[in-house]
Amino acid sequence: MSCPIARSLERVGEWWSMLIMRDALHGMTRFDEFQKSLGIAPNMLARRLDALVAAGLLERRRYSKRPPRHEYVVTERGRDLRPVLISLMAWGNRHFAPEGASVQLIDRRSGTVAEPMLVDRLTGQPITETEHVLAAGPAAPERTRLRYATAPDAGAPARSKRRSPRDQGTQKGAVA
Amino acid sequence: MSCPIARSLERVGEWWSMLIMRDALHGMTRFDEFQKSLGIAPNMLARRLDALVAAGLLERRRYSKRPPRHEYVVTERGRDLRPVLISLMAWGNRHFAPEGASVQLIDRRSGTVAEPMLVDRLTGQPITETEHVLAAGPAAPERTRLRYATAPDAGAPARSKRRSPRDQGTQKGAVA
Repeated sequence: MSCPIARSLERVGEWWSMLIMRDALHGMTRFDEFQKSLGIAPNMLARRLDALVAAGLLERRRYSKRPPRHEYVVTERGRDLRPVLISLMAWGNRHFAPEGASVQLIDRRSGTVAEPMLVDRLTGQPITETEHVLAAGPAAPERTRLRYATAPDAGAPARSKRRSPRDQGTQKGAVA
Repeated sequence: MSCPIARSLERVGEWWSMLIMRDALHGMTRFDEFQKSLGIAPNMLARRLDALVAAGLLERRRYSKRPPRHEYVVTERGRDLRPVLISLMAWGNRHFAPEGASVQLIDRRSGTVAEPMLVDRLTGQPITETEHVLAAGPAAPERTRLRYATAPDAGAPARSKRRSPRDQGTQKGAVA
């Protein structure tokens, strides 16, 4: 699959993988720590850790020679996953925490609860369905071009406002 | 599990669920559209759609009486998942698209590529590991409190700078 969302999910689309990365980003490095935190079967944990190492999110490092012991250290690629986890946290707190937040993002300086939101780094504008749309990129294969050429974004309020050159000359509804 | 990340993953932690929501947020509503886009087995697609309806991310609506036909419409809860998908897209583009982006976020007005990043809605500051830390919230059970009380965030450069009341009086490293 060429879709970057699908490619990401190939690496972390497994339930446990995300939770391991949550704990790794929180500073855990050792097998026993992960196991204690997650309550996961050791063979399953070993498999998921191996997959995360293979995908380049964790690096396996020996910290003891005798007996041989390894720890799992977050790579830059793994660290870059943090916005995904924080977005999942925010969504979970908003929709699935009727009793209140169990985990929240804290601004270290002020001690206040931060409210994560996506903006465009270039313009500072909030990312909204009104203003921003997913579109086929330069490396998109035919299949992807078709998907993004034909179906309008759900809730796009003003399709006629679109001025992306990528959208011009495409037929609306040709596939649907 | 009380962790909001885990609760979110209970709803969308399955590979196909995320991709269905990707397509639904792009405006697809009909079984055939999803199937064509995803190349997924019909029984599997039906199961995932049912689960997304049960979790409140999609709403099933009849659009034809004879023959009976239904479509799947994104709810507000489903719409709120968009930052998660956009964050997965950005991560995939950064790390798993050596040939270039197949899908990207476009600013409708300018037609330029947007670079999604997380900021704090209240302060406008970028969410970084240096400035923001996950911490136990008011509804956290003992298990969660322990996890966030003891292990420092990976890469937290200045632990002594923490001023969250939640962090005070906790023992560093008690579990690790």
